[in-house]
Amino acid sequence: MSVITLTTDFGTRDWFSGTMKGVIWRIQPRARIADITHEIPPGRISTGAFVLSAACPFFPPHTVHVAIVDPGVGSSRRAIAVETERFFFVGPDNGVLAKALARETIRQIRRLENPRYFLEPLSATFHGRDVFAPVAAHLCRGIALNRFGPPQDDYVRLESPSPIPRLGGMTGEVIYLDRFGNAVTNLPAIAQAALASGCLTLAGRASPLPLVSCYQMIPKGQAAGLCGSHGYMEIALFGGSAAQRLGLRIGSRVTLSLIPPRRIPRRSPKRGP
Amino acid sequence: MSVITLTTDFGTRDWFSGTMKGVIWRIQPRARIADITHEIPPGRISTGAFVLSAACPFFPPHTVHVAIVDPGVGSSRRAIAVETERFFFVGPDNGVLAKALARETIRQIRRLENPRYFLEPLSATFHGRDVFAPVAAHLCRGIALNRFGPPQDDYVRLESPSPIPRLGGMTGEVIYLDRFGNAVTNLPAIAQAALASGCLTLAGRASPLPLVSCYQMIPKGQAAGLCGSHGYMEIALFGGSAAQRLGLRIGSRVTLSLIPPRRIPRRSPKRGP
Amino acid sequence: MSVITLTTDFGTRDWFSGTMKGVIWRIQPRARIADITHEIPPGRISTGAFVLSAACPFFPPHTVHVAIVDPGVGSSRRAIAVETERFFFVGPDNGVLAKALARETIRQIRRLENPRYFLEPLSATFHGRDVFAPVAAHLCRGIALNRFGPPQDDYVRLESPSPIPRLGGMTGEVIYLDRFGNAVTNLPAIAQAALASGCLTLAGRASPLPLVSCYQMIPKGQAAGLCGSHGYMEIALFGGSAAQRLGLRIGSRVTLSLIPPRRIPRRSPKRGP
Repeated sequence: MSVITLTTDFGTRDWFSGTMKGVIWRIQPRARIADITHEIPPGRISTGAFVLSAACPFFPPHTVHVAIVDPGVGSSRRAIAVETERFFFVGPDNGVLAKALARETIRQIRRLENPRYFLEPLSATFHGRDVFAPVAAHLCRGIALNRFGPPQDDYVRLESPSPIPRLGGMTGEVIYLDRFGNAVTNLPAIAQAALASGCLTLAGRASPLPLVSCYQMIPKGQAAGLCGSHGYMEIALFGGSAAQRLGLRIGSRVTLSLIPPRRIPRRSPKRGP
Repeated sequence: MSVITLTTDFGTRDWFSGTMKGVIWRIQPRARIADITHEIPPGRISTGAFVLSAACPFFPPHTVHVAIVDPGVGSSRRAIAVETERFFFVGPDNGVLAKALARETIRQIRRLENPRYFLEPLSATFHGRDVFAPVAAHLCRGIALNRFGPPQDDYVRLESPSPIPRLGGMTGEVIYLDRFGNAVTNLPAIAQAALASGCLTLAGRASPLPLVSCYQMIPKGQAAGLCGSHGYMEIALFGGSAAQRLGLRIGSRVTLSLIPPRRIPRRSPKRGP
Repeated sequence: MSVITLTTDFGTRDWFSGTMKGVIWRIQPRARIADITHEIPPGRISTGAFVLSAACPFFPPHTVHVAIVDPGVGSSRRAIAVETERFFFVGPDNGVLAKALARETIRQIRRLENPRYFLEPLSATFHGRDVFAPVAAHLCRGIALNRFGPPQDDYVRLESPSPIPRLGGMTGEVIYLDRFGNAVTNLPAIAQAALASGCLTLAGRASPLPLVSCYQMIPKGQAAGLCGSHGYMEIALFGGSAAQRLGLRIGSRVTLSLIPPRRIPRRSPKRGP
């Protein structure tokens, strides 16, 4: 039980994330700390939630995952720590932990209210340093979760769009744009065997995108859909940014169609009425 | 005694900071290394000095803090290591360590002149790798400071502006702009109890900014002053960049006024003559 | 044998590099992980190769160096692990390891084909997480290289320009631009003693650049050549970006001339016909 991960919107040009490591090592010198990212766009809770959920399953059992996208720091929003069957999660109770927690079996949720585990004096503006880092370090030392504050039944969910089933498929939307310009949707990845019989249609574009198994299978300069490593369908463009080329944004609508193989129209997709 | 921190202007896109870790681990495999930041603007010594001073107090005793913003690498500027009651500091003697050292009780200062603790061959352009990293690692191993070179009485101070006292307050200036666009001043943070009776006035702006206790207390889209987690007054804008909105730069003048509570003009701040 | 380095084009704003650390620590909890950089421009194999080669010699013996710039992920390109006298190297066999390997004494090369050392299920798009990270961690644990797959005789070389000898010097080109705007060439660094008698000439510019021993020796605002810490001649501008000022790009041609000292034209360099 000695790994702590950090997912924040603190950036890397100031002293914020580095200082958290000092606080952690003062309390638990043996903690190994992995930066997931500190470049969540400031205050964008849903982006932090997605990144955390994509990274956290790959860490060792008992890892303490800290996620801080916290526009409400110092206000009445609650801070929580959650114990699940596999991990601990620490952060503001504002939805940033929600997407990761949705896949976990939760054992208990505690509000962080015991100042014994906070830094003294407690600032009103940097709970990453003064609350979340020390709590994570104490958890990593083996302090029982019930010591940190009173129990809480549930956690704040994220308002996130669910795909809508349709005849022969479903409609969802883009929920994340990565560094490469790949557009991740909320459509669950389909089986490799079904790729050949499916396609993705973007709102406002008549010609559907084919589905392929890897980036290399996309004809150079063209776009396609594929099953991302995060478990969702994504749209990629080989050798460039799909988001930029296709004008995709968070919220852009995408429809997945699964057509029985013999009915795929070949080489003459309908292009409008 | 096993933590080393790095504060540099080396950036993260080249091999500079990563290579320092290799050098450190070759000498002291057990060192834990925390990047404070590598994104100090190239050559901006005062920014490096501020970031180091904001981060260093939060690290474990005996941490070796390395700060390298070193436009004079290879010239006659001296390289030093400093032992204080709590920490070690290693870097060029050009002011980058000054703001942190000003708050420490200094035990001894040594010039780094013993080539036994340098990398061989010594390059003229990358002392981060060839001098500062190996010295930090040897300090972390427990080598006594007096082995590294001759003693030195003092260190190079940073020319930094001090706030000027005024009737009922003081005038200072912006010394740092963080990722969120918060503008940190050199005005020392005041007691929480005094917030309600104070305000900040920016040069060239008639209406003063109220003081609040946390970001969440700032009305959306408006700016305010608050006590930053670094111990100074800062100017923030909830949901945006105060620096951008208010045109704040390093050196922008800011006046803190502390008015006895009953004399605060309410809802009708003077707006010019 | 417990250090792993990462050189990738994954960036730091998504979950890619952080997730690799989780995978590594699940397999080898004692690995120390150094990020060389994750900011290789997407798909730019030659840049990744240069950065790896500049950083890797400075790490402890038996370090496992992982380099992933892998536009062909999921295609038929091979993945390899290489044991040299000093280190291990892991990555796609597309040239990204070539520049580092060219300076090593190679013991054996193995194709990564044994799925026992991969993550299950294996994605088609993120071999950094599913193949390279677990293989590096298993190597770090001491698993013998021959367990990972069949031997291979050679590795894919990088098509990289070699300097062309000329009367009294050689002509090469810019191969790397660093954060500071320094332009690294493929011309090998010359002895310090020869600096005074040499100069660099850029294609299309009549006046040659003098050679100096360190950045500080460059007159403010002017450019010069010097021996970089990576072992090549580089072009720098004190207090600014040489690349920007001189319009240098990857591939810009640069000629190194070594003139016997008494024949250096002083103060009146030829400026065109």
